Amino acid sequence: MTEIAPADSLFARLRGAAGEAWQGYTRHAFVRQLGRGDLPEACFKHYLVQDYIFLKHFARAYALAVFKSDALDDMRQAAGTLDALLNEEMSLHLRYCAGWGLDEAAILAAPEAAQNMAYTRFVLERGLSGDLLDLLTALAPCVVGYAEIGLWLAADADSKRDNNPYGDWIETYSGESYQSVARAAIEQLDRVAARRVGNDLSARLPALEATFEAATRLEIGFWDMGLEPAA
Amino acid sequence: MTEIAPADSLFARLRGAAGEAWQGYTRHAFVRQLGRGDLPEACFKHYLVQDYIFLKHFARAYALAVFKSDALDDMRQAAGTLDALLNEEMSLHLRYCAGWGLDEAAILAAPEAAQNMAYTRFVLERGLSGDLLDLLTALAPCVVGYAEIGLWLAADADSKRDNNPYGDWIETYSGESYQSVARAAIEQLDRVAARRVGNDLSARLPALEATFEAATRLEIGFWDMGLEPAA
Amino acid sequence: MTEIAPADSLFARLRGAAGEAWQGYTRHAFVRQLGRGDLPEACFKHYLVQDYIFLKHFARAYALAVFKSDALDDMRQAAGTLDALLNEEMSLHLRYCAGWGLDEAAILAAPEAAQNMAYTRFVLERGLSGDLLDLLTALAPCVVGYAEIGLWLAADADSKRDNNPYGDWIETYSGESYQSVARAAIEQLDRVAARRVGNDLSARLPALEATFEAATRLEIGFWDMGLEPAA
Amino acid sequence: MTEIAPADSLFARLRGAAGEAWQGYTRHAFVRQLGRGDLPEACFKHYLVQDYIFLKHFARAYALAVFKSDALDDMRQAAGTLDALLNEEMSLHLRYCAGWGLDEAAILAAPEAAQNMAYTRFVLERGLSGDLLDLLTALAPCVVGYAEIGLWLAADADSKRDNNPYGDWIETYSGESYQSVARAAIEQLDRVAARRVGNDLSARLPALEATFEAATRLEIGFWDMGLEPAA
Repeated sequence: MTEIAPADSLFARLRGAAGEAWQGYTRHAFVRQLGRGDLPEACFKHYLVQDYIFLKHFARAYALAVFKSDALDDMRQAAGTLDALLNEEMSLHLRYCAGWGLDEAAILAAPEAAQNMAYTRFVLERGLSGDLLDLLTALAPCVVGYAEIGLWLAADADSKRDNNPYGDWIETYSGESYQSVARAAIEQLDRVAARRVGNDLSARLPALEATFEAATRLEIGFWDMGLEPAA
Repeated sequence: MTEIAPADSLFARLRGAAGEAWQGYTRHAFVRQLGRGDLPEACFKHYLVQDYIFLKHFARAYALAVFKSDALDDMRQAAGTLDALLNEEMSLHLRYCAGWGLDEAAILAAPEAAQNMAYTRFVLERGLSGDLLDLLTALAPCVVGYAEIGLWLAADADSKRDNNPYGDWIETYSGESYQSVARAAIEQLDRVAARRVGNDLSARLPALEATFEAATRLEIGFWDMGLEPAA
Repeated sequence: MTEIAPADSLFARLRGAAGEAWQGYTRHAFVRQLGRGDLPEACFKHYLVQDYIFLKHFARAYALAVFKSDALDDMRQAAGTLDALLNEEMSLHLRYCAGWGLDEAAILAAPEAAQNMAYTRFVLERGLSGDLLDLLTALAPCVVGYAEIGLWLAADADSKRDNNPYGDWIETYSGESYQSVARAAIEQLDRVAARRVGNDLSARLPALEATFEAATRLEIGFWDMGLEPAA
Repeated sequence: MTEIAPADSLFARLRGAAGEAWQGYTRHAFVRQLGRGDLPEACFKHYLVQDYIFLKHFARAYALAVFKSDALDDMRQAAGTLDALLNEEMSLHLRYCAGWGLDEAAILAAPEAAQNMAYTRFVLERGLSGDLLDLLTALAPCVVGYAEIGLWLAADADSKRDNNPYGDWIETYSGESYQSVARAAIEQLDRVAARRVGNDLSARLPALEATFEAATRLEIGFWDMGLEPAA
């Protein structure tokens, strides 16, 4: 499996510090079942409806990143992600949901799960109380984590390649289009850290690690919630 | 038991709409055990440590209310609450904790429980994305709810009056000083609603009710967390 | 000349209340000289460089509007305007500036004029301390005002039609593409007012009028600044 | 004259980089006339009314600093300044104004001068788009500058000591109470810089210097405005 984050990147350092939590998130039972194709449909459906609400707030977080950018390159990158979320990723979810007879109004009428709310509000609040670097750090476990999960599932021996009902999901997140978004996020994290802190990140690192690990644990909570219909 | 919110106040309408959730919060098992004095000390201690972290973020929410106020009276009221939180309520917790040999550094080193984080970040984010009325609505279940709980426990036949280890807690929240804070919060909600919306709140009410109920459910989660050490 | 705002729209009410200031802005000497084609090139160049910096912060304000939206339709409309600002209007300015040998780095290195800074920071701060309605109200004089100015110049007898060096500018803002952006902004203002306040805006109107008039006066200051090189 | 900022403090570096602008602000004609006691009363009155509106927004900026603090010591320091602004400095202004028959309602009804608005909105916006360090940097020219001005006027040979109508003003800002606020602000800037950036500030310094100098220039604009009634 290809490693998407350079060893000396800030992302790699944050992921390393999150250790166990990072494994718990990217190798979660929900992910494994999705790869083997034996995740109950009720779980996937529950996850997808919640993820639609999640993406709405995640889009708001990227809008916040545009607002918090001093440099035009950071503004443009965040605006590009905002556009991709609102006009591509969310549409993909709508198409999936349409297959189950669920339209946008029905999805948005679903009660927002506590684990869902906890994650997005944490990210948004971190972005507002801190700076762009704090915000991007809180966003990173999701953006880059999904790319890692996609790559792992696409390469894993346990994954079911043919007739996997979740094959589209795996293809989306392992595909070059999503992978390049994740690589750009990794690069931006380094670029913004260089501007906001400099070469020596040691004074700022403990706070960034705490933010990254908290977001990672909230991702675990999100997968746990996905499995609830099967409990 | 005295009713602290006038029947035609916005608070009374929001509480009415939250119905069952409001009961679940103000009559929670944690509250009942606290009143009878048979709440396990481990639960109270866990709650108090988390509540200290909670109050830190709640103080930040009142600071946000100062920032979001257009009028000086709203600024002064929020600044007064901020001051009371930072310099009185938090000190009270420290004195309790000191009795168990816990100092401030030890409390702040405790991992923030997910239910704790979920609540405060929801309030802060609501305040930033909405206006002062949205923020005060998200704060109200806590501020006024504790006053209601205090009054109820002080009057309830099941409450243990003598040698209740949590007698101080009940006295604090049923006492006139805290009750007047809650009454002022109820009045401010009406005043700010009149300025931001007017007399007819019907267009805005559904969103305010959703915020109030979400905050109430997050309060229930907080009490659930408090009982975890006994599970 | 066609009237773009329906008589019963919130925009028409705000514009009416701004009275004299609105005339001072939309019929400013800078605008008249631009229409007659006799605006000194140094003034237009100064204006355009400052306007590029202005648009960067205006784009940030639309990103803030995405963040502050509760509804997906409001998010999508604001994200569409953000995209148009970053990827179309700003590119137009760059093409003009390239004609004078100015590239983006040179433009962004220009000191931000005090009148420029005053306007954008007012809008952004209003958006953060208030709600989406306050933010859209602060944005409206610019978005809709330019459409009115474009229409007026295109129809005015004093305007020079042939060989006007600023013909492109007039065409852009009187053109259907920009006009439809302005009409959508007028509609959104009514839609958001209906959601955040209701049918009776009387309680909120004084504050909205104050915001609208302050932004209009800051627009006058921006045109004044544009004329400074000729002073 | 005593130097209040240690030579190796961040404040001293920022002030050094602002060079000429810093002189223009702290040795402004308004300040000199105030020291000599020959500032026209109309100017001082105009200044004081605008400064009251200024302090209202400055108090909001300190509330924002509480919200943006991660550490309790930073929260407490900002909350203390907020309290001093709302309950002491603003009351001082009210007492002065009462001498001219102006009450709070009359002051708040005065139109906010453009130079006043420009400064406070810049500070608030910088605080929201950046982090606590950016916000404290934008606040520093005011907080520490007034302490420097107070000390200078108290020591300057040109100052009129007896029967100076502005003697109270000079005493307030040269007095130990205000001086200790300024020293604490200088220390906090270093403490927060150490937490948010570390020992080597070189990567962040250009942006901090730009913020500090912009705020200093906006202070000059504020004094200019104060002299307008005499023009």
